[in-house]
Amino acid sequence: MHNFDFHNPVRVLFGQGQIATLSTLVPEGARVLMLYGGGSIRANGVYDEVKTALAGHTVLEFGGIEPNPTYETLMRAIELVRAERVDFLLAVGGGSVIDGTKFIAAGALLDGDPWSIFEQRAANIHAALPFGAVLTLPATGSEMNSAAVVTRKATLEKRAFASRHVFPRFAVLDPTKTYSLPARQVGNGVVDAFVHVMEQYLTTPVDAKVQDRFAEGLLLTLVEDGPKALSEPENYDVRANLMWTATLALNGLIGVGVPQDWATHMIGHELTALYGLDHAQTLAVVLPAMLRVRREAKRAKLLQYAARVWNLTDGDEDARIDAAIERTEAFFESVGVPTRLSGYGLGKENVEPVLAALEAHRLTKLGEDRGVTLEVSRKVLELAV
Amino acid sequence: MHNFDFHNPVRVLFGQGQIATLSTLVPEGARVLMLYGGGSIRANGVYDEVKTALAGHTVLEFGGIEPNPTYETLMRAIELVRAERVDFLLAVGGGSVIDGTKFIAAGALLDGDPWSIFEQRAANIHAALPFGAVLTLPATGSEMNSAAVVTRKATLEKRAFASRHVFPRFAVLDPTKTYSLPARQVGNGVVDAFVHVMEQYLTTPVDAKVQDRFAEGLLLTLVEDGPKALSEPENYDVRANLMWTATLALNGLIGVGVPQDWATHMIGHELTALYGLDHAQTLAVVLPAMLRVRREAKRAKLLQYAARVWNLTDGDEDARIDAAIERTEAFFESVGVPTRLSGYGLGKENVEPVLAALEAHRLTKLGEDRGVTLEVSRKVLELAV
Repeated sequence: MHNFDFHNPVRVLFGQGQIATLSTLVPEGARVLMLYGGGSIRANGVYDEVKTALAGHTVLEFGGIEPNPTYETLMRAIELVRAERVDFLLAVGGGSVIDGTKFIAAGALLDGDPWSIFEQRAANIHAALPFGAVLTLPATGSEMNSAAVVTRKATLEKRAFASRHVFPRFAVLDPTKTYSLPARQVGNGVVDAFVHVMEQYLTTPVDAKVQDRFAEGLLLTLVEDGPKALSEPENYDVRANLMWTATLALNGLIGVGVPQDWATHMIGHELTALYGLDHAQTLAVVLPAMLRVRREAKRAKLLQYAARVWNLTDGDEDARIDAAIERTEAFFESVGVPTRLSGYGLGKENVEPVLAALEAHRLTKLGEDRGVTLEVSRKVLELAV
Repeated sequence: MHNFDFHNPVRVLFGQGQIATLSTLVPEGARVLMLYGGGSIRANGVYDEVKTALAGHTVLEFGGIEPNPTYETLMRAIELVRAERVDFLLAVGGGSVIDGTKFIAAGALLDGDPWSIFEQRAANIHAALPFGAVLTLPATGSEMNSAAVVTRKATLEKRAFASRHVFPRFAVLDPTKTYSLPARQVGNGVVDAFVHVMEQYLTTPVDAKVQDRFAEGLLLTLVEDGPKALSEPENYDVRANLMWTATLALNGLIGVGVPQDWATHMIGHELTALYGLDHAQTLAVVLPAMLRVRREAKRAKLLQYAARVWNLTDGDEDARIDAAIERTEAFFESVGVPTRLSGYGLGKENVEPVLAALEAHRLTKLGEDRGVTLEVSRKVLELAV
């Protein structure tokens, strides 16, 4: 096990009815800006519950934060924060709203252009506005971590940052608020959480038994309850397990002291930026191909994954690895997410631009061992067609 | 899954060499009181490493905190804190030193007798001195939680409290510092962590899949690496897995949203107070008998435990349950901890005083369903002779 530094101060309020606790979670006397996306929170009752809980507070609103939140939109929110002397932010939505809120929280207190956060790898963040989150879409884990991804529309750049100053003060997770999600978003969330775990687990073994078992526990839960979330959308326990799993998939815990990969995510980000695929769709496409191409570097962990997640313990090692990857693909498909570029109307001709973007962004040595060169990325993408 | 409120702000610095980080972890300019136990930290090098790391700080010392730390000793430390205007505490040792430090941290800021913390169930704790921990004995999990147990020598009372004000600011965990532990303490630590998990896991199912899988992951790690810690005392990965497991066994995570038992601990506390058994020894004696007596209430979870931790899936349900409990006993014995009262020179005649103590302390309805009446406790203890 490698040395590590783990710190996650986010308070989680979990369960049906927990939105009401906002009345005491949000500091008394705060000037609150409530941030949200396209308006689904009005349809599912979350908007009303939040407003009711905050009846005693001063609450401004900023809606319209898009999936893959853009710098351009978030800068308008920062202007509003400054003009209205907002001193507490409340993100109400999924990972995009929460990611965007992190950028706003840090950017509002910065001199100069907040895009500098990415250029300086967040070294210029010395403080951020306090904020909380009400989660409506289990997927990204943003509600309990300190990272965010922002897209610059003008240049098609999708960039990430992390800073200890942008941990949410609290996250409210009410599984009943996910009942009304469209199937596509549910499936995407399941795949997103699954691949978050895989990026931290399916690397090289360092005998970190707890991290491995925890990762496997999250994967098994997704395999068991992911499809059920689609077939039984109002099964509370299924939704609760899914929601807590997605949060724990990327709150730092399973990634401590172990090698991490993230090559699938980096290639996926370019696919989203260039062709507009949903984040999870890119992961479903890239991960199986990545595992096939990198099977030698990942052999020991692939066998462990085959045994413990898919119960594949008999027969030839390579057959077990093949079967485990096939099961992974079939699982993604079972929650409605295609696993080939062709499933999204893309083909061979779309590979080269992705490689060019990776090169332009200097993403030419990815993976836990920096073994994912452009040549490896090419193989992965060609296999994923 | 039940609703829950999870918050654990403790920062963990894990790995070989991490004691050096104290130089920046402990606030500059603080008047530090370093607290420790019987002096083993002088023999294993921890004392010197801590002093070196804190060379730039003002450091006072208070040694001699005993296993099952006493109110009487801790009150002397509180006097020192007040007299010397100490403003930061550093616990260096195992769970007893850290528990004691929590009592000191809260007690030093209280008007009146700090014993009132127990009488008022910690409701009178509104602040505490900040403190950190350097862990030398993986066992209790105190380094990453907000609970403590203190014994009053004069009255033989062993009482617990918990308060969000007594989370350590940080915990430094260096597995190499556990190499020199006596076998008895290693074995006790393994049993302690195992039973901490069982108290939160072996109850009634509420379909909390992640909590169950995480608990099972910790149990499996203890089963795999616990005996190895004794046979290969300087195996770094084994010690690292054990140390991280013991911390996660009681940092709140696996206990969120699920029923919890703790009857074994309550009965065990009385055995320690009356007969001086080590805490873990009492757990090794009580747990197997408790599982036998409570097998109907715990049937579903016992079968899950048998299957997932001991791989017992064939044959009659009752035979599987019997076998799982026998494996549990054999495991405790394998790390050198006897599982019968007779193993500690106690017999039938020692049962009645324990029941009297439970009654005196109003511990007459214990367990996840309050089903452990005095009559059930009697059966458990008689079976444990």
